[in-house]
Amino acid sequence: MLINPVPNFTTAQTGPLFPFETTILNALMPIESWFRQSWKNTPAPLMSSVDLRHAGFKLAPVDTNLFPAGFNNLNPDFMPLCVQAIQSTLGSQCQRLLLIPENHTRNQFYIQSFKVLRDILLTAGYEVRLGHLQSDVKKTIELQLDSGETLLLEPLIREGSRIKIGTYDPCTVILNNDLSSGIPDILLNLEQRIEPVAELGWAMRLKSGHFAYYDQVVNEFSALLNLDPWLINPLHEAVHDIDFMAKIGIERLADAVDRILQRIQQYYQHYAITEKPYVVVKADRGTYGMGVMVVQDPNQLLHLNRKQRSHMAKTKGNQNIHHVLIQEGVYSFESMQDGSVAEPVVYMMGSYVVGGFYRVHRELGINDILNTPGMHFEPLAFAQPCNIPNLRTDRPHPTQRFYVYGVIARLAALAAAREAAALRGLK
Amino acid sequence: MLINPVPNFTTAQTGPLFPFETTILNALMPIESWFRQSWKNTPAPLMSSVDLRHAGFKLAPVDTNLFPAGFNNLNPDFMPLCVQAIQSTLGSQCQRLLLIPENHTRNQFYIQSFKVLRDILLTAGYEVRLGHLQSDVKKTIELQLDSGETLLLEPLIREGSRIKIGTYDPCTVILNNDLSSGIPDILLNLEQRIEPVAELGWAMRLKSGHFAYYDQVVNEFSALLNLDPWLINPLHEAVHDIDFMAKIGIERLADAVDRILQRIQQYYQHYAITEKPYVVVKADRGTYGMGVMVVQDPNQLLHLNRKQRSHMAKTKGNQNIHHVLIQEGVYSFESMQDGSVAEPVVYMMGSYVVGGFYRVHRELGINDILNTPGMHFEPLAFAQPCNIPNLRTDRPHPTQRFYVYGVIARLAALAAAREAAALRGLK
Repeated sequence: MLINPVPNFTTAQTGPLFPFETTILNALMPIESWFRQSWKNTPAPLMSSVDLRHAGFKLAPVDTNLFPAGFNNLNPDFMPLCVQAIQSTLGSQCQRLLLIPENHTRNQFYIQSFKVLRDILLTAGYEVRLGHLQSDVKKTIELQLDSGETLLLEPLIREGSRIKIGTYDPCTVILNNDLSSGIPDILLNLEQRIEPVAELGWAMRLKSGHFAYYDQVVNEFSALLNLDPWLINPLHEAVHDIDFMAKIGIERLADAVDRILQRIQQYYQHYAITEKPYVVVKADRGTYGMGVMVVQDPNQLLHLNRKQRSHMAKTKGNQNIHHVLIQEGVYSFESMQDGSVAEPVVYMMGSYVVGGFYRVHRELGINDILNTPGMHFEPLAFAQPCNIPNLRTDRPHPTQRFYVYGVIARLAALAAAREAAALRGLK
Repeated sequence: MLINPVPNFTTAQTGPLFPFETTILNALMPIESWFRQSWKNTPAPLMSSVDLRHAGFKLAPVDTNLFPAGFNNLNPDFMPLCVQAIQSTLGSQCQRLLLIPENHTRNQFYIQSFKVLRDILLTAGYEVRLGHLQSDVKKTIELQLDSGETLLLEPLIREGSRIKIGTYDPCTVILNNDLSSGIPDILLNLEQRIEPVAELGWAMRLKSGHFAYYDQVVNEFSALLNLDPWLINPLHEAVHDIDFMAKIGIERLADAVDRILQRIQQYYQHYAITEKPYVVVKADRGTYGMGVMVVQDPNQLLHLNRKQRSHMAKTKGNQNIHHVLIQEGVYSFESMQDGSVAEPVVYMMGSYVVGGFYRVHRELGINDILNTPGMHFEPLAFAQPCNIPNLRTDRPHPTQRFYVYGVIARLAALAAAREAAALRGLK
């Protein structure tokens, strides 16, 4: 008798596994071997988190974050996995680290996550100093934790092609700041290693670029498993030169949405899925769920009111939105027994899956976007890590689904690794 | 308020930490950095386990095993750590493994441990086939588990300089067989990688050789921490050309024992320790606690009866004992609340500490040898892994002591790595 470690989690309890999940579980060995070769070609990002949506018939990443927060939501029992993974990934080349958080943050959740990240690096036996990118502030900034503890963010100085804190000369700079407002001068043309490369900050990175690499990765992976790529990949299309306020390009956008909806409908028919297709239109740059909307009918776009248009016009850091990504909406059919919608988020350090949690929303529907500003969610830490499935697929067990999460999340991380490699090649 | 995860474990509960433990905990960063450099120079053994004895004032390894059993005694919650560690250590060079267990074993504990080891390798995504070294048996041997499961040990064939199972051509051979009876012809001059190198089997390896490397390692480590090396190193001396049955060399042995006892007494006086010094005399080759005796007075050796002499004359595989190691006895002052003696055993995969357990003996004293044949012990899995200490040394917490265990165990593994490197250099 297996003990279920995820209380109240409906899909995990009531499996059977969906066919594509069984396909993945039965191919653990070729999958792990393929990942090993893939990471050899393009090293994994130092850290990443991937938001997944599981519609039952389909499981897909909807966002890949290279500046993850939320480490405080992971199961504390997995900290040893994080420590080991970071040791394996950082290796012995560099002992002195500089870690840089978001600017101007008073968000306790973020500060707690940042502290957990700092502690993982310290426990792994690296020297860690914290620096801030607020060039207008020449002194140390104190981040207060509710626990009473204080984190000291020291001012950074530039000396030649190196960044330092006083005489502290780090060999690796770890960005936990997504650079939404652009790459600050102090980070330009550094000879020190930066993880991730600053060009992967949201000021330059395009979601459509990421998903183009994801298409590549999924096509290779699906060929290996003889799997329909659509089952793990949301359809998408980028639309450029839009101005929501000036109503420029909106018809073009509506046409593209219509195309994607029709393609989704074809897949739904093929797989006898009776749900109504929908898409998510989101800023091609940017994060934090700003500038995002759900569309089931292209006509919606032609009749946006001023408030809706202004919602779509700006993203984090007051950046204007001119390029959007249309992404196939993936229903979230994972829910708690009380009906709340749950969305898994998987965390990786290097090539290793180190844990995850569910964003559980008590008031949202199955096609709502679960990561939007001010949106309340309760984190439910995975009770088990994602790297050790129960190998017997005839006996459903939550670790099996967790393993599948970890596979899809790693595909997204591999796409990010290829983005980074392409940028490093260009530099 | 911290929750103590190790029920009834006296020393862990009643801390305070001993001074050398605090020294080690406060130096986590330089220690981890030093280990990283050390593993870069001499790669860690693929797997190892180290028996430790903790006398409070002193913590030392007494045995380093490169063919560990006992994986079944580890906390199942740490399996993800094992999987990750083996992935990091084996890497992407080789996908097809051959795993070889002990010969002629019907010991359920061993078979269960071997199955756990096999499952770790499978879950890490490697191809694994099991082979046996019983050259007189040309067919597949079935190992029955009490659970009803069966492990198939297939016959090995030699083709040129490669070892195979039929057409299965592994790139790495993992020995979980300590080769007590010598290196079988089929393993000689293989072009495939063998872990560990066959010359580290007990037919050739000398404990005194291991502890000579351990001396080196401890001296470097102690200099880094400004620590008296004796606090983590048992005194030892090898004595050769002994024949217990023919009473040859016994006086020489008694003299050497006397020398070591006097040196221990000097240290005890220096540290104001009032216990009575003792040594352990053990076969310099061999394992399984055979050919081992405790000596508190050199005269004991001059008056051994026939039974005692015959006990010291042979070790596993009926090998004659001619060389012995005299090792400083380290009291075991770790005990359960009911007074049972407990001895920690720490497991490593590559450079990573992946867990451990206590050998708990209800009927033995603090200077008894806890790993002897037929000796009953109860395994008490560590409730936490050894790689993530609570960093605040002012608040005692069992994870602190576990971290110290992990450091000392890694020093012993590093000594084994240097043994292996020296052998590889010779080959």
